[in-house]
Amino acid sequence: MEIQAINLTDKLALFDEHWSPRIIAQMNDYHFKLAKIQGEFIWHSHPETDEVFIILKGEMRIEFRDYHTELSEGEMCVVPRGIEHKPVAENECQIMLVEPVGTVNTGDAGGERTKTEVIWI
Amino acid sequence: MEIQAINLTDKLALFDEHWSPRIIAQMNDYHFKLAKIQGEFIWHSHPETDEVFIILKGEMRIEFRDYHTELSEGEMCVVPRGIEHKPVAENECQIMLVEPVGTVNTGDAGGERTKTEVIWI
Repeated sequence: MEIQAINLTDKLALFDEHWSPRIIAQMNDYHFKLAKIQGEFIWHSHPETDEVFIILKGEMRIEFRDYHTELSEGEMCVVPRGIEHKPVAENECQIMLVEPVGTVNTGDAGGERTKTEVIWI
Repeated sequence: MEIQAINLTDKLALFDEHWSPRIIAQMNDYHFKLAKIQGEFIWHSHPETDEVFIILKGEMRIEFRDYHTELSEGEMCVVPRGIEHKPVAENECQIMLVEPVGTVNTGDAGGERTKTEVIWI
């Protein structure tokens, strides 16, 4: 099977749901996921892994317990394992996440916003 | 230490050398690297790891033994472990690579284009 280019814009056009990441690629035991976010997520951490946010369109911030980090299109950041954080976007923001296969969106917090079945697009 | 946004454009402005990736972030035991490429690289493979290419600006292609894959800004691809490939860019192309810490640019091929010391910027 030939190795294909993955077009991020085309993939983002395939879904509208907020806070529901879709998998677009796998590298070793890591997934690359796209997500559209708007509003506030919940406080959580990932005790077992760092997590990368890459901003593809729009702006967001990641709140930490003592400060927050603003992120705009063309920026990325690494949230270290175990650090409590809450992603927030005033307006819709489109992002790519990189994290190990099986990483759950709500980390150690669980609850109704957990997406247990993350689908490939 | 506060978690910082990493601005890809700002980081890319810090170097001009072609085929010489710079590290901008670490997630677990993976590095995110930026590179500027132009011309032809060498045939090589990475027997132990997949490798991700994300195109930030311009166009490139990855040649495989029987075909090639064209990549434009906003596209990415995963080169599976062990697959021989040769990156080529007619004009300067700016890319982000994601691969395990210690992955060597020339993989199993070695030679004069190997960058043994990859620096953080």
